[in-house]
Amino acid sequence: MTSSAAPAPPLALGIDFGGTSVKLGVCQGADLLQKAEPIPTKQFSGAKALLPEIEQTIAQLREKHPGIAAIGAGLPGFVNWETGRVHALTNVDGWEGINLKEELTASTGLPTVAENDANAMTYAEWRYGAGQGRDYLLAMTLGTGVGGGLVLGGELYRGATFGAGEIGQISIDYQGRVGGHGNFGALERYVGNGPFTDLAIEHYQAANQPQTAEACTPALVAQRAKEGDPIALGVWREVGQRLAIGLANVMWVLNLDCVVIGGGMAKADEILLGPLREHLESQMDPSFTQRLKIVHARFGNEAGIIGAAALAVDECLPARQS
Amino acid sequence: MTSSAAPAPPLALGIDFGGTSVKLGVCQGADLLQKAEPIPTKQFSGAKALLPEIEQTIAQLREKHPGIAAIGAGLPGFVNWETGRVHALTNVDGWEGINLKEELTASTGLPTVAENDANAMTYAEWRYGAGQGRDYLLAMTLGTGVGGGLVLGGELYRGATFGAGEIGQISIDYQGRVGGHGNFGALERYVGNGPFTDLAIEHYQAANQPQTAEACTPALVAQRAKEGDPIALGVWREVGQRLAIGLANVMWVLNLDCVVIGGGMAKADEILLGPLREHLESQMDPSFTQRLKIVHARFGNEAGIIGAAALAVDECLPARQS
Repeated sequence: MTSSAAPAPPLALGIDFGGTSVKLGVCQGADLLQKAEPIPTKQFSGAKALLPEIEQTIAQLREKHPGIAAIGAGLPGFVNWETGRVHALTNVDGWEGINLKEELTASTGLPTVAENDANAMTYAEWRYGAGQGRDYLLAMTLGTGVGGGLVLGGELYRGATFGAGEIGQISIDYQGRVGGHGNFGALERYVGNGPFTDLAIEHYQAANQPQTAEACTPALVAQRAKEGDPIALGVWREVGQRLAIGLANVMWVLNLDCVVIGGGMAKADEILLGPLREHLESQMDPSFTQRLKIVHARFGNEAGIIGAAALAVDECLPARQS
Repeated sequence: MTSSAAPAPPLALGIDFGGTSVKLGVCQGADLLQKAEPIPTKQFSGAKALLPEIEQTIAQLREKHPGIAAIGAGLPGFVNWETGRVHALTNVDGWEGINLKEELTASTGLPTVAENDANAMTYAEWRYGAGQGRDYLLAMTLGTGVGGGLVLGGELYRGATFGAGEIGQISIDYQGRVGGHGNFGALERYVGNGPFTDLAIEHYQAANQPQTAEACTPALVAQRAKEGDPIALGVWREVGQRLAIGLANVMWVLNLDCVVIGGGMAKADEILLGPLREHLESQMDPSFTQRLKIVHARFGNEAGIIGAAALAVDECLPARQS
């Protein structure tokens, strides 16, 4: 399933439905050949108004790239992968019950897949990214929220009702902070951007070197940590330890061999990954950690487009698959 | 894959390697036709001495049941399911690196599978037990320890190094009690037999009705709860809530449609399962819990034998599979 010795993969169009914009791009394997101008979601009142705009952009991209053979769309919600029906789209109105797969297949004549956006990102990292060659993989994004997706036994894992991979919701404290679903101790309340800044303020306060919230973003604290600031290093160590407990929970249950971490906070790289690995190893049997690779994601904001396109190729064009 | 309208499944021999004894039985689907006298593990010094004894018992059972067509063995440790090699057998000495699959195949001439014992139990509950018809299943045992196994997408899930399903080790408190692997907040330190008794003593103490540890076993507290004792009911409610957090962690990640609970503590049945379901539902999005079935295991101590035998039939005799 690697592309190294294989002929160039076919062209596919990837679509990433975000809360603020819809991004489209023409992909060939790991390469994003061309990106279209993003379509601002909020300027259109729901699916009915947005779809023609998307279809027009698709038509423009196909004019330039007539070889486009399939379309993949990543969506921020539950997607019934078998039927293409979309449920509970986060931050985007008017999509409930829409069958995007059927709509786009009908209007473009191209085979189409619709998939959860975290799953699309996961697929990109497994198929062409930092998780290539590993078949038991969690890919996660660390940012305002914490999301993720799974490849198990070399296949994208979706779960009984297409909701799998909600790593940000797992509890690391059964009596802890209340999360968005009334759940106690949700991981994203301990390692997301907001909690990171709160923790950094606390650490600097405790060291009698108070800092503002503006000075305590993950990016700025990472910069100070790289310059050797011991307080900044301590903040990242504590966040790494919290994250390790969340990941250990997944590891004990799934015995993975790869964790790919992306999103804004992952830019701290070894400042975060070092303490994370160390704490995870101190908490688990070596048989679980010896083969485990914890790495920075290869793809950034484009992972959703690339993954959706790759899925479209692999699911819709089996004859051409390497 | 159900046996209802199918012809009677072939006979298979199931073996359950426990810490104190090796149990053998002749199975036909869900039915345990005959059990052999258990072989006490500790009377034999390791694999070399124990194997001939097992082989003799197998020969005796085959004399009575000449139709036995395959052998399945469940072992308390990591089993490389592809090669049959056994690693890190818990509580049993002298098995490191033994290839039980090859040994038994050679001595009996029958196709053999070796599998982790929790996986064998899980397979029994999925194939013939309380989880029949559900393809995203966690089966767990609640006793002195807490163990489990997974069926995902209709297949036994083993993980990258055959260690998956260690539900008892997942953390419900990142700063909590230290478990057997140096890990903080391991679920089995909150819901196992010992922690249950500790919690019951606390509850009765707090109500000024002190009880001894002997009076606070799960079985006795369940009996009092069934008789309406509000303190006993409160103990089970708290244990159910702790367990719910552990299960929610698995649900968020895997989006299962069935949890089967066995082991001594599961005998409390609805006294435990009621609060467990209630707390789980209060902590999760309905899309995760609507289709979720949480049920008492069908098989007791015999789950390991039945599951190992069923696996042997399904893995070794594909032509006869229903």
